[in-house]
Amino acid sequence: MTKIKMNSQMYQWATDLFPICRSITGNGVRQTLNYLQKLLPNLQIYEVPSGTQAFDWTVPDEWNIKDAFICNEQGNKIVDFSKNNLHVVGYSEPVDCQMTFEELDKHLYSLPEQPTAIPYITSYYKRRWGFCLSENQRNELRQNPQAEYYIKIDSSLHPGSLTYGELIIPGSTKEEILLSTYICHPSIANNELSGPVVTTALAEYISKQHSNRYTYRILFIPETIGSIVYLSRNWEYMKQHTIAGFVVTCVGDDRTYSYIPSRLGNTLADKAALHILKHKVANFKQYSFLDRGSDERQYCSPEIDLPVCSICRSKYGEYPEYHTSLDNLDLISAKGLEGAYSVLKECIFLLEHNLKYKTKVLCEPQLGKRGLYPNLSTKESGKQVRDMMNLIAYADGKYDLIDIANIVGVSAIKLIPIVEKLIDADLLEVVNTKSEE
Amino acid sequence: MTKIKMNSQMYQWATDLFPICRSITGNGVRQTLNYLQKLLPNLQIYEVPSGTQAFDWTVPDEWNIKDAFICNEQGNKIVDFSKNNLHVVGYSEPVDCQMTFEELDKHLYSLPEQPTAIPYITSYYKRRWGFCLSENQRNELRQNPQAEYYIKIDSSLHPGSLTYGELIIPGSTKEEILLSTYICHPSIANNELSGPVVTTALAEYISKQHSNRYTYRILFIPETIGSIVYLSRNWEYMKQHTIAGFVVTCVGDDRTYSYIPSRLGNTLADKAALHILKHKVANFKQYSFLDRGSDERQYCSPEIDLPVCSICRSKYGEYPEYHTSLDNLDLISAKGLEGAYSVLKECIFLLEHNLKYKTKVLCEPQLGKRGLYPNLSTKESGKQVRDMMNLIAYADGKYDLIDIANIVGVSAIKLIPIVEKLIDADLLEVVNTKSEE
Amino acid sequence: MTKIKMNSQMYQWATDLFPICRSITGNGVRQTLNYLQKLLPNLQIYEVPSGTQAFDWTVPDEWNIKDAFICNEQGNKIVDFSKNNLHVVGYSEPVDCQMTFEELDKHLYSLPEQPTAIPYITSYYKRRWGFCLSENQRNELRQNPQAEYYIKIDSSLHPGSLTYGELIIPGSTKEEILLSTYICHPSIANNELSGPVVTTALAEYISKQHSNRYTYRILFIPETIGSIVYLSRNWEYMKQHTIAGFVVTCVGDDRTYSYIPSRLGNTLADKAALHILKHKVANFKQYSFLDRGSDERQYCSPEIDLPVCSICRSKYGEYPEYHTSLDNLDLISAKGLEGAYSVLKECIFLLEHNLKYKTKVLCEPQLGKRGLYPNLSTKESGKQVRDMMNLIAYADGKYDLIDIANIVGVSAIKLIPIVEKLIDADLLEVVNTKSEE
Repeated sequence: MTKIKMNSQMYQWATDLFPICRSITGNGVRQTLNYLQKLLPNLQIYEVPSGTQAFDWTVPDEWNIKDAFICNEQGNKIVDFSKNNLHVVGYSEPVDCQMTFEELDKHLYSLPEQPTAIPYITSYYKRRWGFCLSENQRNELRQNPQAEYYIKIDSSLHPGSLTYGELIIPGSTKEEILLSTYICHPSIANNELSGPVVTTALAEYISKQHSNRYTYRILFIPETIGSIVYLSRNWEYMKQHTIAGFVVTCVGDDRTYSYIPSRLGNTLADKAALHILKHKVANFKQYSFLDRGSDERQYCSPEIDLPVCSICRSKYGEYPEYHTSLDNLDLISAKGLEGAYSVLKECIFLLEHNLKYKTKVLCEPQLGKRGLYPNLSTKESGKQVRDMMNLIAYADGKYDLIDIANIVGVSAIKLIPIVEKLIDADLLEVVNTKSEE
Repeated sequence: MTKIKMNSQMYQWATDLFPICRSITGNGVRQTLNYLQKLLPNLQIYEVPSGTQAFDWTVPDEWNIKDAFICNEQGNKIVDFSKNNLHVVGYSEPVDCQMTFEELDKHLYSLPEQPTAIPYITSYYKRRWGFCLSENQRNELRQNPQAEYYIKIDSSLHPGSLTYGELIIPGSTKEEILLSTYICHPSIANNELSGPVVTTALAEYISKQHSNRYTYRILFIPETIGSIVYLSRNWEYMKQHTIAGFVVTCVGDDRTYSYIPSRLGNTLADKAALHILKHKVANFKQYSFLDRGSDERQYCSPEIDLPVCSICRSKYGEYPEYHTSLDNLDLISAKGLEGAYSVLKECIFLLEHNLKYKTKVLCEPQLGKRGLYPNLSTKESGKQVRDMMNLIAYADGKYDLIDIANIVGVSAIKLIPIVEKLIDADLLEVVNTKSEE
Repeated sequence: MTKIKMNSQMYQWATDLFPICRSITGNGVRQTLNYLQKLLPNLQIYEVPSGTQAFDWTVPDEWNIKDAFICNEQGNKIVDFSKNNLHVVGYSEPVDCQMTFEELDKHLYSLPEQPTAIPYITSYYKRRWGFCLSENQRNELRQNPQAEYYIKIDSSLHPGSLTYGELIIPGSTKEEILLSTYICHPSIANNELSGPVVTTALAEYISKQHSNRYTYRILFIPETIGSIVYLSRNWEYMKQHTIAGFVVTCVGDDRTYSYIPSRLGNTLADKAALHILKHKVANFKQYSFLDRGSDERQYCSPEIDLPVCSICRSKYGEYPEYHTSLDNLDLISAKGLEGAYSVLKECIFLLEHNLKYKTKVLCEPQLGKRGLYPNLSTKESGKQVRDMMNLIAYADGKYDLIDIANIVGVSAIKLIPIVEKLIDADLLEVVNTKSEE
């Protein structure tokens, strides 16, 4: 019951947020963060002024848009921003003029190979304007190259600020797990809203746990410039404290699961993600860091080098609807969102329990006298005793739980209740790590 | 001639020891050790009182048994301990009463899938009594559920002691090689007597060598509780001095060879065992430490963590006769025992020579002027010169002989005479290791 | 044009040097070095007296030969050194006598399986004399075992010296790259002259570079005794300064490419050789160090252990013409020499640029504002931007250029211009290494 409610919730949030015209700056970002703040009251919203330097980058002018259209000689709006905000090239400068199709055509973008789709195009750092439309519609317009059109983009590009959201959920240690998602695409579902809604559901789950070991840093930022700005203010602290992190993007459809490793593929985040995916998901696509494309480009860059990887459903750039109007609410589903949510939740649950354990007696303990042998000997209980003995055999204080599970060939999630039984029986102890000091 | 004598000897010893009713304590163990002491006069026999604490375990009461039977109404002993000591559940408490088959049946053990075999059952740490018999015989008894039977188990369970044997054969260094075998099963051949008799033959072989580099610690102990008790008294010294060890069990049949690695599979014992098996045995089954089942469970437990692995013929739990009356003297053979003996002997021989060597001249030596080129150039002599040059090329003081043999792709055993030639020619020297200090 | 000239040059040099009767000492070596000194004026020629001790070896007496023949009863020279210098066993002592074929036959060498080829035979360290001839000719002589022959070898074996050439081309650091080739075989093309002529062309190329980072040590030595003598005088300095080296041998035919690793196969020379071969040559044969046979036997011997591997065309011992008169000027070609030259030249070029680089900005740089995005977006330019971003992602100061190229899966040679662009844009810097100190 709770599960179904959760499903509906995430999809409903995506539906609510879909119409907003987001970009890397502007009121669309603010509206989105205000909506999420109602769900996550501790979400802090920050504004970073245009012109602020962030490493090699500068926060650009803020872009806002009220309306935009192409009107034909008959006075009909044949391309209308109010119907689909993908129709305007992101960061288009204002325009208000009349021209023939031949002139206008230089400002049009369509996809010959996907003739029904409106492409998603932006031009953040070079001033221009443009409209996106389907190849089919453009072909109709091509019939009459001399036709005149009235073009209007009621946008503004002025010094303002870049907006982002940050939620810190404190744990019992200062060691942190990072979740990062982006809020800078207009009406796009898998490659935009799936990220914030799954991240919001994860934040709600984490908040409800009684005693998290780790502190959670959860970011809702514009892609690229947002993570660069955020890192320029926080990376030294994050570098010291982050034990694992996940970029949450493209987590909404239900076709597949994907994994994109960190730069070297050898971090705790990678280890947890691969372990969960291997045991929970029948098949998943394993990409290379060479296939990266979201904020891990910044998180994993040299010297910053945070332990961050990504788990996606259909990965950006790898599904036909990517960066078009076909990446809409029909593409994602409650089931797709829920699948990604539960994989990421399990990664978090695993990381919370992924400690180094050490047996408290030398040689094998006598399980019988402690009632740790099952009363009824079934195939399942036999397997559980073997798992328990194997866990004990490798609990030498050097391996963490995932290492042991990988050696034994079982899901680490299944070992967690056994760990708890053995700790209760005073047979196992946690090895103190940096985080306890 | 010597070899054939040896074969007969090991099989004869097994035949002599077969009828004794051993368990984890009691006179059967003492009788067995007394027999072995005649072969190995320096074997020391130790008694550890019941109630002694050993890590998480306590030495149990001593169990002895004189007689046991099930007698039918006609006065015939239909199940008789004196005919096969497997008929009684090990550690059965005494019983002397009459009951119907229906009542008796709760105390019977048989194997529906192996209807002619008597199973081997024990209950060391929970008091009970029982009889083991073939499924066929039990089916006959089932014909008349109301028949009355007179049942007697003339056993005793009293404070006494646990008995084990220890043989130390000193070498020129304090570094040790461990051989451990168990003496706690009644009339069982492969999964019991093959171990002590092969170990005895190895002990005789080691004793006869003029100058062993290593000290040998050879243990004849009851399984599990015996190794736990032994380790509780000796593990700190053993941890400091043991360079390699082997659990010797199931070394009597001639169907296959098996290898069970140490906990991490990376010890010198594993390295030697794998090298010898690969070069000497056409096919062998390589198990995982997850398939463990004998005293390596204790030797390799965390913190104790001795470099111990096992070489078996048909491994415990993996052959149909295991833990039944079918694991008898027909299952093992002189050939089977001899095969295991010679593999283990070769492991010991290799370990004795597995030093780090270093060439004494820079660049290649001039073999010709030293007569190290063969007079007659044959295919075999050409191979020997190549082996010699390859040995010299890798004798850099960092690799041991097994490493070099693995790189060159030859048997380390074949390199040993070449090493000796080069040392005689003053071209090679042993690199001093801890053991010489 | 230059390329074709180069080809002709190398082949012409081989042609000029072919008739000279070289051995491990003597005037043939001096003539060869004098010829090369005209091409490489800085080549230093050294003489090491007979009797000089070099590790386990002694410089032998010098061997020279004026003439040699077998003359039949009719006064015809049927085997004539002046026609092919392979006819005389290398280091033959002088002889001047008459004998029957039966007696002479003990001094003859031929190849039953290659009946038209004259074998190449030497006896440097055991005094003997002999003639080599084709199996076909020997069969003719066998027709008349009692025929008398007049035999003359006008050779001398006297204290003299061993001669070798050394060319040092200083770079901006004392770190060195070693090129070593041999000059001790008589009229043999692939397994002799290809080495010196390709090495000479490489020395000319290196000399012409404006600013080499590394110093080049280029050796023209008799095989085995020459490298042993050279190392006995220079190995301690070489051990301290050599970062990579190549034995240049069998680099003249155009059938294949071959790679023979260093002793452990993990040196910088191996890394560069494998990278270039994988990206430049469709197929190459990868041998083991166990297949070694030239001066890497000395360079890679324990303790000396220089980072030296070999790149060959058809490797010594692996082609049918090896060590026979069929390994002549017809076997090698301008194309074959040029191929080996260009692979080795690229190894050198790569090593000169194979530094550790580090990005100078945190997070990704903004390539757009620096004009580092291509104006015209083509498939090739897209690939170049990806290569640039991948290079930046892994330029963390820990990986060298070959490591990064291997991770990214591109040729390191293609990354070099990108590195230069990024250094010009102040986005990348070289990490100081030992060589700059």
